[in-house]
Amino acid sequence: MRSSFLGSLCVLLLLRAPLCCSDEDTSNTGNPCCHFPCQHQGVCVRYALDRYECDCTRTGYYGENCTVPEFWSRVRELLKPSPDSIHYFLTHFKWLWDVINCTFLRDVLMRLVLTARSTLIPSPPTFNSKYGYLSWESYYNVSYYTRILPPVPEDCPTPMGVKGKVVLPSPELLVNKLLLRRTFRPDPQGSNLMFAFFAQHFTHQFFKTHNSMGLGYTKALAHGVDAGHIYGDNLARQLKLRLQRDGKLKYQLIDGQMYPPLVADAPVKMNYPPGTPPELQLAIGQEVFGLLPGLGMYATLWLREHNRVCDILKAEHPTWDDDQLFQTARLIIIGETIRIVIEEYVQHLSGYLLKLKFDPSLLFNAQFQYSNRIALEFVQLYHWHPLMPDSFFIDGDELSYEQFLFNTSVVTQYGVEKLVDAFSRQVAGQVGGANNMHAVVTGVAVRTIIESRLLRIQSFNQYRKRFKLQPYTSFTQFTGEEEVAGELEDMYGDIDALEFYPGLLLERTRPGAIFGESMVEMGAPFSLKGLLGNPICSPEYWKPSTFGGQVGFDLVLSASLKKLVCLNTRTCPPYVAFHVPEETSAPNGHMDDEL
Amino acid sequence: MRSSFLGSLCVLLLLRAPLCCSDEDTSNTGNPCCHFPCQHQGVCVRYALDRYECDCTRTGYYGENCTVPEFWSRVRELLKPSPDSIHYFLTHFKWLWDVINCTFLRDVLMRLVLTARSTLIPSPPTFNSKYGYLSWESYYNVSYYTRILPPVPEDCPTPMGVKGKVVLPSPELLVNKLLLRRTFRPDPQGSNLMFAFFAQHFTHQFFKTHNSMGLGYTKALAHGVDAGHIYGDNLARQLKLRLQRDGKLKYQLIDGQMYPPLVADAPVKMNYPPGTPPELQLAIGQEVFGLLPGLGMYATLWLREHNRVCDILKAEHPTWDDDQLFQTARLIIIGETIRIVIEEYVQHLSGYLLKLKFDPSLLFNAQFQYSNRIALEFVQLYHWHPLMPDSFFIDGDELSYEQFLFNTSVVTQYGVEKLVDAFSRQVAGQVGGANNMHAVVTGVAVRTIIESRLLRIQSFNQYRKRFKLQPYTSFTQFTGEEEVAGELEDMYGDIDALEFYPGLLLERTRPGAIFGESMVEMGAPFSLKGLLGNPICSPEYWKPSTFGGQVGFDLVLSASLKKLVCLNTRTCPPYVAFHVPEETSAPNGHMDDEL
Repeated sequence: MRSSFLGSLCVLLLLRAPLCCSDEDTSNTGNPCCHFPCQHQGVCVRYALDRYECDCTRTGYYGENCTVPEFWSRVRELLKPSPDSIHYFLTHFKWLWDVINCTFLRDVLMRLVLTARSTLIPSPPTFNSKYGYLSWESYYNVSYYTRILPPVPEDCPTPMGVKGKVVLPSPELLVNKLLLRRTFRPDPQGSNLMFAFFAQHFTHQFFKTHNSMGLGYTKALAHGVDAGHIYGDNLARQLKLRLQRDGKLKYQLIDGQMYPPLVADAPVKMNYPPGTPPELQLAIGQEVFGLLPGLGMYATLWLREHNRVCDILKAEHPTWDDDQLFQTARLIIIGETIRIVIEEYVQHLSGYLLKLKFDPSLLFNAQFQYSNRIALEFVQLYHWHPLMPDSFFIDGDELSYEQFLFNTSVVTQYGVEKLVDAFSRQVAGQVGGANNMHAVVTGVAVRTIIESRLLRIQSFNQYRKRFKLQPYTSFTQFTGEEEVAGELEDMYGDIDALEFYPGLLLERTRPGAIFGESMVEMGAPFSLKGLLGNPICSPEYWKPSTFGGQVGFDLVLSASLKKLVCLNTRTCPPYVAFHVPEETSAPNGHMDDEL
Repeated sequence: MRSSFLGSLCVLLLLRAPLCCSDEDTSNTGNPCCHFPCQHQGVCVRYALDRYECDCTRTGYYGENCTVPEFWSRVRELLKPSPDSIHYFLTHFKWLWDVINCTFLRDVLMRLVLTARSTLIPSPPTFNSKYGYLSWESYYNVSYYTRILPPVPEDCPTPMGVKGKVVLPSPELLVNKLLLRRTFRPDPQGSNLMFAFFAQHFTHQFFKTHNSMGLGYTKALAHGVDAGHIYGDNLARQLKLRLQRDGKLKYQLIDGQMYPPLVADAPVKMNYPPGTPPELQLAIGQEVFGLLPGLGMYATLWLREHNRVCDILKAEHPTWDDDQLFQTARLIIIGETIRIVIEEYVQHLSGYLLKLKFDPSLLFNAQFQYSNRIALEFVQLYHWHPLMPDSFFIDGDELSYEQFLFNTSVVTQYGVEKLVDAFSRQVAGQVGGANNMHAVVTGVAVRTIIESRLLRIQSFNQYRKRFKLQPYTSFTQFTGEEEVAGELEDMYGDIDALEFYPGLLLERTRPGAIFGESMVEMGAPFSLKGLLGNPICSPEYWKPSTFGGQVGFDLVLSASLKKLVCLNTRTCPPYVAFHVPEETSAPNGHMDDEL
C-alpha cells in the first residue's frame, strides 16, 4: 500500500510535463507579452517584433513559459494544503488552539505565518505605474506606489491583454448594479465601527494618493507605519504641530480634556470645506482627518497618548531635550500601533484561533528585508467602504452622514468616551459580497475602478496566480451564485478579464467571514510585510534603549486598544473592542437594518 | 595533555569576569555617557542627572557596562584569529590559494568575507550628525549621511569625551607637520593613477557633501552605486544629459571619437572656474568632474560604454522605446561597475591571493539587507589624497597641477588611449604613513579635520573598538616609530584622544601595503556592504531579464577594466590596469622621486 503510494508519487514527480497551465498560442497578435505567457512569476521579455522569452530564474519552474516544475516545486505543489484548508484549520478546533497558544508552537506558527505571507511581496520593490520592467527609477523614486504586477502593455488588443471585451463595463453601471447597498448586511465576524475607523485612520498614514502629481503617485513617502497621520508627512508640518516643549504635540483643552489644536494655533493645511468655522477646524497630522469624527476620535486618542508618553519619558530622563523626548515618543507610538494592529486588529480580522503575536525577534533568524514600499494593488484592495453603516448611533442619537461628515464638533461635544462606546457597539457592514456599499461612498468605488483602468492594472485572475491561488474558471465558481455571475458574464465576457477591485469585492465570502479568499490571501502579505518591515522591528532597533529604556519598551510590549483608550480618558468606557459585544449581534437600533 | 588543555579552556570560559575592559569610574563628571562606558556596542542611555544604563541587548555581553561575555562570545574571543593573522593568511601561501581559487572553497571564503565584513555595518542605518540616538528622522531623512557611532555629546569635558586635552591641535599644524609630503613615497602595492582616478570617479557618485545645506548632509540621496556620476543625481539633470533617442546619452564627436557633450548642448550646472572657455566645459553627470582630466577620462569611457550598451540592447529589442533602453543600460552600467570594483579594484587594493568574486547569489541564503546608507565615517576615511603624484606624465610630457586642473582639453587632445596608458604606468603615492600628501591637496585634509570636529566624531580608538579591533595603548604602538609618536603625544596627550582621520592615515602601514590595518578593517565593511547592498544584487533583480536578457546579463558578468577601455577605443592601449607594470616598479621619469 505504502510502496504503491510512493510509486505513484514518483511517477507524478518524474512526469515533468506541465500540469496546470496550457501554453497559449501567442503567434497572432502584436506584442506577445499581452498574452502573459510566462507563468509562476516568470518575466516576459520582448525580442524582435513578435518574439518573447520568459525569464524563469528562481521561479522553481522551467520551460518556454516557466510551466514545468523543478523537483522541489512539484513536491511542494503536491504537499501544500490549499489556502482554504489552512484557513479552515486556523479558524476551527478551538480546543487544539487553546493548547497550541500556550506552547512554543505559537511562536513556530506565527513565524510561519509571517514568512509565508511576506515572501509574496518583492523586496526591494519592482515595478511602478510608469515602469513595467525593473529600473533604477522605479526602485529609487519613492514618489510612486510600487506595483506587484506590471501594467498591461499599452499595445494590447484588450484592456486586460488579450482576454475579454475591448470595452470594459461602465464603472457607474457596475457599481450601481453590483456594489450599491440595498439593505445593510452586517459583518458576520462582528466588526464594529471602532474597527472601521481604526482601519481608515491607520491606513491613511501610508495611503495618500497624490492626484495633483499624477496617477500612481503618493504623498506618503515613508511607505509604511511612520505615524505620519499623527505627526504630518513632512518635517515642516511636524514642526507646526509640535509644542516644541517636553517633546509634546500642541493641543487644546475643552472641559479640561485634551483635543487636537485649532488650525489657528497649529497652522497646517487641512482639507475642510470652504466656510467651515475656524473653531471647528482641528489641526491633525493627516490633512483629511477632519472628514469623519471617527478619525478625529482616533487622532485625539493618539495625540493624548503621545503627550502621555512624553510625560513618562521626561520623568525617566530629566536631562533629555524636547527633540529627544519627541523622537523617542514617536518610536514608541509606532511600536504601540504595530502591536495593536497585529494582536487585535489583524487578529480580529483573520478570525484565526492562533493567538497572533507581535514579536519581531521571530524573524531575526529568517531572511527578511526591513524595508517596505506601498503597492498600488494594496491601495486598491483596501477600499473597504462597505464597512460604513447607514447612519451613526451615538449616546441615543442617530446621526446621518450629513450630520457626521466634517463635523469635528461630534468629537469635542460627545467626547472620546461616548464615541468609543458607541462605535464599539455599532456593527459595521460586511465587505465581501454584492450590494453592501452605502450610496454616500459609491463614488469612491467608481473612481477606484476608473483609476485602475488608467493605470492598466492586470486582471483579477492574474493576481490570483501571482498570489499562488488557482485562477477561477467561471463567474459562477467565482461568486458562488448565478445572478451576479450572470451580470458579470454580460459585462466582462470572460472570467480572465474580470478586474482586480471588483473581483476582490464580489468574490463569494468565506462562511461567516467578512471577506472572500482573495482579499485575505492578497491583503495579508502586504499588511504583514509592512508591519514587520518597519525599521523598529529590525535587530538594530528592537531593544529597550531605542524606546528610552525598559519603561518605554514595556509601553510597546503591552500596548492595547483598551489601554490606548482607558489611559487617555477620565472614565474608561465600559466596552472597547474591534467587534460588537458577543452577547448581542445586533446592538443599538440597528436590528431592522440587519434582518 | 588534551584533557589538561580542555580543562584550562573550561576554566577560561567559566571565569566570566571581564577580561579586556576595566569599568571606568564615571561618577565625577556631568554626562556619564561622555566616558563611553558601554562596551561591545552597548547603548548608553542617560537617566536622571548622573546615572546611565547600558543596553547590552544582542551584544553577546552583559553586566553593567556590557563587559562580561556570554558563553559563545567567550568562545569566539578565544578562537577568532586576529585581523592581522587573517590578512597574513590571505596575502601569503600563493600555492595554496592557486588551489583554493579553483575549488568550491573560493565561494565559501568569498561568502565569509562578504558576511563577516557587512555585519559590521548597521542596516537599517542608525544615527546621524543631528541624532546621536535612534529616531525616525535619522532613519528616514536621507539628506543626512548616517553615522556608525553617535557624535560625542555636546556637554563633555573634552572634545573626545573625557580623554585628552580640552583643545585639539591646530589642523594646519597637524597637516603640515605630519601629512604634508616631503618626498614622494610610491605605493608599495604598485597602485597607479588609473587606480587613483577610478577611486575618485567611482566614490564621488555617493560622496557628495552638501555644504550649502549644512554639515553632515549629502546631495547623493541614493546612498550607493546608482551611477549618478554618469547620469546626474536627479531626474532633471538626467533628462538634460540624455539624447532621448535609443536610450543614449548626449555626446560630441572629436576626430570621430565620442566625448561628453559641451555644457552648451547639455545645459547642466557644472563647477568650472569663472572664465573657463565654453568649448572646454564638458557636461558630465557629476558636477565637479571637470576638475581633473583623470575624471574626464573615466566620464568619457562610461559615456561610450553606456551608448555602446544601448546599441547592443536596441539590436536585441527593436521594439523597446528610448526609456526602456536607457533604464536597462543604466542597470547594466551599475552591474559592470560593481563587478570591476570587486574583482579588480578591491582585488588589487586588498592584496589578497583569494580571487574575489562578484556573485550576488553567494548571499542568497544569508541574512543580508539590500539597502545602504553612506556613513560620514566612510566619507572621512576615503580621503586618500596621498595617492596623488607630484606631477602627471603623459605621452612624454610632464604636466604640473596648474596645467592639469580644470583642463578638459587634456582629455580631448591626448585622447582616451594615451591617458589610459599613461595613468596605468604612473605609480600613485602610498596612502598610509606620515608625510606623503602633495601640498596641492593638504587643504582638503585640513577641512576634513575641521569638519570632523564640528561633527564631533568619536576618537580613533573608539572606532577601533567598534570595528572589533584592539584599541592602541600608546602612540608608539600606533605608529611603530618614535618621531611621529612623539609629535602626536604632544598634540593629543592621550592615545584615546587621537582623532579618527589622522589615526587612519598615520597608523603604521602593514608590511608592503598601501594602508594600515584600520583603513582596511573599517573601509572594507562600508565598501562591500554598499556594493552588495545594491538592489541589482537582490534575488528579485539578479536575473537576465533585469538586464535585457542573457546578452545584457553577460555584459555584467564579464565586465572588466580592460574591456571598458578596449571596447570603447579604436586602438586598445597596450597596458591597462590598476597597478603599474610588474617588470618595473618605477615607471616613467619617476625614478628619482621614488628613491
